[in-house]
Amino acid sequence: MKKIAVLTSGGDAPGMNAAVRAVVRCGLVAGLRMYGIRRGYEGLLEGRFEEMDNYSVSGLMYSGGSRLECARCPEMLEPHGPEAAAQILERREIDGLVVIGGDGSFRGALKIAEHGIKVIGLPGTIDNDIPGTERTIGFDTACDTLSWVIERLRDTAESHHRTFVVEAMGRHSGWLALFGGLAGGADVILLPEIPWEHEAICQTITRRMTEGRTFHLVVIAEGAGRATDLVSWLQANLDGELEVRACIPGHIQRGGTPTTLDRVLATRMGQRAVQALQAGRTAMMIGEAKGELAEIPLTEATGSCRTIDKELYDLAMTVG
Amino acid sequence: MKKIAVLTSGGDAPGMNAAVRAVVRCGLVAGLRMYGIRRGYEGLLEGRFEEMDNYSVSGLMYSGGSRLECARCPEMLEPHGPEAAAQILERREIDGLVVIGGDGSFRGALKIAEHGIKVIGLPGTIDNDIPGTERTIGFDTACDTLSWVIERLRDTAESHHRTFVVEAMGRHSGWLALFGGLAGGADVILLPEIPWEHEAICQTITRRMTEGRTFHLVVIAEGAGRATDLVSWLQANLDGELEVRACIPGHIQRGGTPTTLDRVLATRMGQRAVQALQAGRTAMMIGEAKGELAEIPLTEATGSCRTIDKELYDLAMTVG
Amino acid sequence: MKKIAVLTSGGDAPGMNAAVRAVVRCGLVAGLRMYGIRRGYEGLLEGRFEEMDNYSVSGLMYSGGSRLECARCPEMLEPHGPEAAAQILERREIDGLVVIGGDGSFRGALKIAEHGIKVIGLPGTIDNDIPGTERTIGFDTACDTLSWVIERLRDTAESHHRTFVVEAMGRHSGWLALFGGLAGGADVILLPEIPWEHEAICQTITRRMTEGRTFHLVVIAEGAGRATDLVSWLQANLDGELEVRACIPGHIQRGGTPTTLDRVLATRMGQRAVQALQAGRTAMMIGEAKGELAEIPLTEATGSCRTIDKELYDLAMTVG
Amino acid sequence: MKKIAVLTSGGDAPGMNAAVRAVVRCGLVAGLRMYGIRRGYEGLLEGRFEEMDNYSVSGLMYSGGSRLECARCPEMLEPHGPEAAAQILERREIDGLVVIGGDGSFRGALKIAEHGIKVIGLPGTIDNDIPGTERTIGFDTACDTLSWVIERLRDTAESHHRTFVVEAMGRHSGWLALFGGLAGGADVILLPEIPWEHEAICQTITRRMTEGRTFHLVVIAEGAGRATDLVSWLQANLDGELEVRACIPGHIQRGGTPTTLDRVLATRMGQRAVQALQAGRTAMMIGEAKGELAEIPLTEATGSCRTIDKELYDLAMTVG
Repeated sequence: MKKIAVLTSGGDAPGMNAAVRAVVRCGLVAGLRMYGIRRGYEGLLEGRFEEMDNYSVSGLMYSGGSRLECARCPEMLEPHGPEAAAQILERREIDGLVVIGGDGSFRGALKIAEHGIKVIGLPGTIDNDIPGTERTIGFDTACDTLSWVIERLRDTAESHHRTFVVEAMGRHSGWLALFGGLAGGADVILLPEIPWEHEAICQTITRRMTEGRTFHLVVIAEGAGRATDLVSWLQANLDGELEVRACIPGHIQRGGTPTTLDRVLATRMGQRAVQALQAGRTAMMIGEAKGELAEIPLTEATGSCRTIDKELYDLAMTVG
Repeated sequence: MKKIAVLTSGGDAPGMNAAVRAVVRCGLVAGLRMYGIRRGYEGLLEGRFEEMDNYSVSGLMYSGGSRLECARCPEMLEPHGPEAAAQILERREIDGLVVIGGDGSFRGALKIAEHGIKVIGLPGTIDNDIPGTERTIGFDTACDTLSWVIERLRDTAESHHRTFVVEAMGRHSGWLALFGGLAGGADVILLPEIPWEHEAICQTITRRMTEGRTFHLVVIAEGAGRATDLVSWLQANLDGELEVRACIPGHIQRGGTPTTLDRVLATRMGQRAVQALQAGRTAMMIGEAKGELAEIPLTEATGSCRTIDKELYDLAMTVG
Repeated sequence: MKKIAVLTSGGDAPGMNAAVRAVVRCGLVAGLRMYGIRRGYEGLLEGRFEEMDNYSVSGLMYSGGSRLECARCPEMLEPHGPEAAAQILERREIDGLVVIGGDGSFRGALKIAEHGIKVIGLPGTIDNDIPGTERTIGFDTACDTLSWVIERLRDTAESHHRTFVVEAMGRHSGWLALFGGLAGGADVILLPEIPWEHEAICQTITRRMTEGRTFHLVVIAEGAGRATDLVSWLQANLDGELEVRACIPGHIQRGGTPTTLDRVLATRMGQRAVQALQAGRTAMMIGEAKGELAEIPLTEATGSCRTIDKELYDLAMTVG
Repeated sequence: MKKIAVLTSGGDAPGMNAAVRAVVRCGLVAGLRMYGIRRGYEGLLEGRFEEMDNYSVSGLMYSGGSRLECARCPEMLEPHGPEAAAQILERREIDGLVVIGGDGSFRGALKIAEHGIKVIGLPGTIDNDIPGTERTIGFDTACDTLSWVIERLRDTAESHHRTFVVEAMGRHSGWLALFGGLAGGADVILLPEIPWEHEAICQTITRRMTEGRTFHLVVIAEGAGRATDLVSWLQANLDGELEVRACIPGHIQRGGTPTTLDRVLATRMGQRAVQALQAGRTAMMIGEAKGELAEIPLTEATGSCRTIDKELYDLAMTVG
């Protein structure tokens, strides 16, 4: 192992930059030459490589988004894409590739690995839905943002006896809505993984009103429905007793300086990726299992969503 | 002057609690008995008075929303409402009333003043659109929130070459969109006060693309259009070259712990309100004019929106 | 099990309030009567019990410090203290006690348990040094604060080529300095668990200067030395080449609204404490082991400090 | 006017970068060529000029510290320094210089202006003590930081009945301690401008204890004394009834992303500096007077500290 390249792919997540920083610095300390690839697989195919030194990653611990930038790359889904990618890496004598991203990015990584390049994946997504790891880089920061949003709405909810429906990111996965909702003190949380009915929400809210509660905070993951639809339904079916408003924070859930947890996780995973490549491993993801870092075959990390923590959901409904 | 009551009315704004705290503490130090009224004019008519001491307002400096709560009160628009309000205050021997709110709240205040109660208004609104004052309580905090939102979107905008349209609060007034947009580094800002055309935005964005810019941050005040409409138009008219997304932060712009500026402003205005009542003034608003606190007749503070700072708008378009 | 009381003890930690909220709400849902005890063991001995309902803990998710307040209680170290405490609980027919705190608090808890009251401990301390749990309530928030402090110093360090020595809390334990320092991008981290020498720091800084670095960020845990002493030594021994300043953030590391992680951890631990008491367990601490909650005998959780993660320390020194 | 250079000097302050950004962008729009000078006057004398375009200042709105860096420059105090500086600028055909800094920086600016270079000063300091302007760039952000510090201490103060003495920056000026202390809800504020006595503080605290207050928050500006000394005195003279701790946040008061107010102020002042140079003005500072930007002779802006707002101090003592 003499040269390692690193790229970010798919949706960006806070902490990706910290992971790049750790990959580069650990590689340099190990005596390797390190390269960053701009704009994910697209940039790889276009040859957008930059050699990186200690300075290239200075300050990256603190920044949100991805400095290496991300991009979708349809070519990687066709057979010639991964082959071309592998050839480009080979021609540059790059023996190892670190791919930071989610499900789609890992599929590309797997195919490149099949062409003989050693590839290690790092789970970077705010969705926290990758099988084989208990935590993904960016998840904790996104939860902090969502819970911050809910907390701010609470100020005005309490002052005006106003109910809010907050739409959390997560088309297929409710992890963010669940953790952010629990931490934000949400009263009702709706997830794609758990069937829900309008009537039941009405009953919950009606019960809460009987108890004297003057406002209600509802979090709905994108995959469980749209905030605006639920607002309309609630206003139509609660006899105008309730003033309900939607809040759709959208992409602000993707941004922001990473939390301590994401910084430490990203740094540890970045180090482990370099160690794994040096040990000759390939087609593996670095994940967190039972509270410790572990290597999981990339084949196990793709193709499905990690199941939601049903007990935590029940707890959220108990304390909310 | 022996007894003063204070209420918050209309939309809530960060810093209202700090103003209540200052009114109460300054009143107590002056030897007065102080009362808080829950839920604005509605609560006044329902007799929801609470005598307040130093402890009642402990911790209020830090909190968003309004602890006294706000509510709309249609009765105050009818002739008997203000009369009844004045009688209730008189019966309780409350000589002075401090009303913290915006345009609508001040109209009610004026009518109560006509019935012989001394009333002082404090401008509390995130809109900053009240004539006669350069700053309203809550405006600075809302600007901070909006600029924080834009800054977060920038992370992901830069990573993905993605353009955002952020919808800022402000149905009639563009102050928040202008200050928050300028501070957030927005590239285009659309206000209700300044006519704009879709074509011009296209030209701006096209010019920026020619200059090599890969993303664009657009802020639109509610009163100037809807973010979702502009997103559709941009995607349809920029030939799919641009990925554009809406962000509608909504009521999070109302919440949050107040900034230093709002805390200091609210505290100073609260003190001045008590001093004005003690000096026998009525039907006045405490405003900031030429950098200093001043008393402005409430009649001048209602009925219109304060004009936007056109020079600041031009500056925002220059540096964006 | 019919009545449960909860108290906080020792140093406060962000998330203690969220734990109290979860204990109370989960107890209420289980049909129990719930009590809060003010000012820790001292309040217990003085009979400062308050029955708590859903409202008593409203908003507690968000607040720092401990609303139940903490206090030292020398009486608990004498034989009659724990006995008296157990009798008071018995007289009130309180079958279960939840103690949120650290090492000293757990020793008191153990002694009360010996007198027949069922007691469960929750680890609440910013030090993260309790054996038997990978995480304590409050640790993540304190790390966030410390890393925020370092990040802010970096602005001025970079602008002025100025070096900072930050003193982190932790008399016996370096966990906070290690995680906060790593996340804050510190260049040198000094811990009580790992011997260090002035000369080695000089060498590190000199090497960094040769590499062109214009500033250096040093974190020192209280237990490893005083910031002011190290500043004096560095200025005396680096030939005036370096401008070095101390930063002693002190108790701000204890305060603040808890992070998402601390909120979720506190809520889960609070639920588990109630479940454990209902299952008849006593003299146990709820800890996190291998990424999951577990019950650990309180005897194992007292009397020593959890060993620092040496690998993480080496990583911090590698990427810094 | 064809070429303008900009430098930052003295202590850094949040918003300096935003001012540089505005100077550069407004200059470019006006058709000028723009230069940044690294490390203040020292860099000027060493010829460290960089031509700047739109991209050079991208992202500068958000960052703390000074990207152009600051440095002390003893040579500027000797007669040949300013002369040499003027010659270097002349040789590069730079007609205008914008100096962002405080008192010392302005003295250098004045001397360069005497040698025929047009110079405009912008007040950048967290001290807010420059005569001729009601606000300096960076002051609002520093106040926010200080009040955030106090608010965090309050959590633990309240939980443990613990009193804190916070040392605010400000050797000659109490503006930061006053605004930050007022906004943070401090109970006692000690400033260099207002004589104070230990006995009076004792009395205040004793009175507060009689009223049932369990903790006290004291802010002391550096110029009024040291926090550690006051802590010792209080503990010695209040009969051990009080647990008192010092907090010395130090340079974190200099860092951080600027607030909205500082961003807008810096941007407006930056624009005005360019306009003033284009209009042929020299030896002037752009200040805020009566709520609006104005040009003030640099001679009036040096040599003394702006007097503290005594009324605001009395207010702080009233509501605290």
